Amino acid sequence: MIGARLESMLNGGPVFEPGSVWLVGAGPGDPGYLTVNAIRALHQADTILHDALIDDRILDLARPEAHRIFSGKRAGVHSIDQAALCARMIGLARSGQRVLRLKGGDPMIFGRGGEEMLRLAEAGIPFRIIPGVTAGLAAMAVASIPATLRDVNRAVVFATGHEAADTGETDWAALAMLGQPLVLYMALRRLNGIAHRLIAGGMPPETPLAVISSATRSDEDILISSLGTVAEDRRRHAIEPPAIVVIGEIVKTRERLLQVAPAFAGALV
Amino acid sequence: MIGARLESMLNGGPVFEPGSVWLVGAGPGDPGYLTVNAIRALHQADTILHDALIDDRILDLARPEAHRIFSGKRAGVHSIDQAALCARMIGLARSGQRVLRLKGGDPMIFGRGGEEMLRLAEAGIPFRIIPGVTAGLAAMAVASIPATLRDVNRAVVFATGHEAADTGETDWAALAMLGQPLVLYMALRRLNGIAHRLIAGGMPPETPLAVISSATRSDEDILISSLGTVAEDRRRHAIEPPAIVVIGEIVKTRERLLQVAPAFAGALV
Repeated sequence: MIGARLESMLNGGPVFEPGSVWLVGAGPGDPGYLTVNAIRALHQADTILHDALIDDRILDLARPEAHRIFSGKRAGVHSIDQAALCARMIGLARSGQRVLRLKGGDPMIFGRGGEEMLRLAEAGIPFRIIPGVTAGLAAMAVASIPATLRDVNRAVVFATGHEAADTGETDWAALAMLGQPLVLYMALRRLNGIAHRLIAGGMPPETPLAVISSATRSDEDILISSLGTVAEDRRRHAIEPPAIVVIGEIVKTRERLLQVAPAFAGALV
Repeated sequence: MIGARLESMLNGGPVFEPGSVWLVGAGPGDPGYLTVNAIRALHQADTILHDALIDDRILDLARPEAHRIFSGKRAGVHSIDQAALCARMIGLARSGQRVLRLKGGDPMIFGRGGEEMLRLAEAGIPFRIIPGVTAGLAAMAVASIPATLRDVNRAVVFATGHEAADTGETDWAALAMLGQPLVLYMALRRLNGIAHRLIAGGMPPETPLAVISSATRSDEDILISSLGTVAEDRRRHAIEPPAIVVIGEIVKTRERLLQVAPAFAGALV
């Protein structure tokens, strides 16, 4: 049924040359979000350096003889230093291996893929970027919240809630003023403070807010709240990282769906 | 080589029930960006309503007996009225078909998937959303421009440049003030005017700008310019839709790569 066309699609495409590194997005979690290019990469790689939270069903698409190296971070703690990770990728590539750096979501948005690409280029290592479905869009889809909707918004902001010494704090007041939906990555630990700053910046406390945890995974969970009540709502409904936070009128789309079609309530999560 | 694991992955997952509609993202163009879930949907669908610019190699993954209906828009002209399209999807689903609405990129960002989802729910038609790799992230990846980079930005704005009567004009001055990179969809026709408004809003004319046309397709093309010179540069280097426009310091990443590793110049496009 799947047939010769898919087989030839998987066998075609760019060849993973020995001595090169591919930065590959694995999507939000469920193997159904893998792309053909990512599967191709898994089939050819000699060594796979993978993030936390990469499903075993994805890793099992690698060749049995491929080395798998856990290279993730958990809860903001760097399990492996970024410079050491880059040095390791460069060393493996120089020894002639096909090195696959497998990241959750898309490697080039809040995934440090850009930095790794620059380090590889500086070292003279050929690289390729294999985009994936980014966690923000996948999380919104499972919650039936579109990123854009006619009559609601003409722009959407993706921002990190993760604290970083490098670029200073995000200008939450400026984002509050923009009046467009915010999709926040890695924001759960600091969410109460971010909500406070957005309200201080002029965003109404009634603004709807959704927290979508572990989107597409078996422990997927969704909390619908508002900017002003999220701190309290989280005390009643504990929700854990990894999570995407969506803030804006667009979140009401989910409620509109439940109103017009209550029968879908169960299918929405 | 591809083996039993992938086969079982493709055969598993949600069943496409007769009488339902799936809103599916096909990614930016090249079939390598299709997800496993999208391939599953193509294998099961009875009727496929597809946008313009969906590669034949993608459509050929459908069952031979599946009906294919072109339902796209070209250059801003609605080839089919949105209301008529929704009525058609609803009618086909009510007649017991598995209806696949296949869109370029991701269906829920600048793809009208949200509206279609609401119309389906109102009609009592079960639906499912299958995210895809969005055109903006794929275009940036082929141009080796990360969406986020340490020391450069902590947020990125996705906005439409398409004129719409519904929500009024985008507040370009507010976006100019934000100081974060902009990724614009469907902005090429109005780009000179948008650049003018961003400069009027306080964005420096020197701000780097990239136009990435037909990303991942055989006619892929990239123009590197700046906010102040893009009108003139486009007269010298004609570049056609579909295109993604990226505006911000992040665009310089491509130049940094070419400086550290000139040998990659050919591989970057």
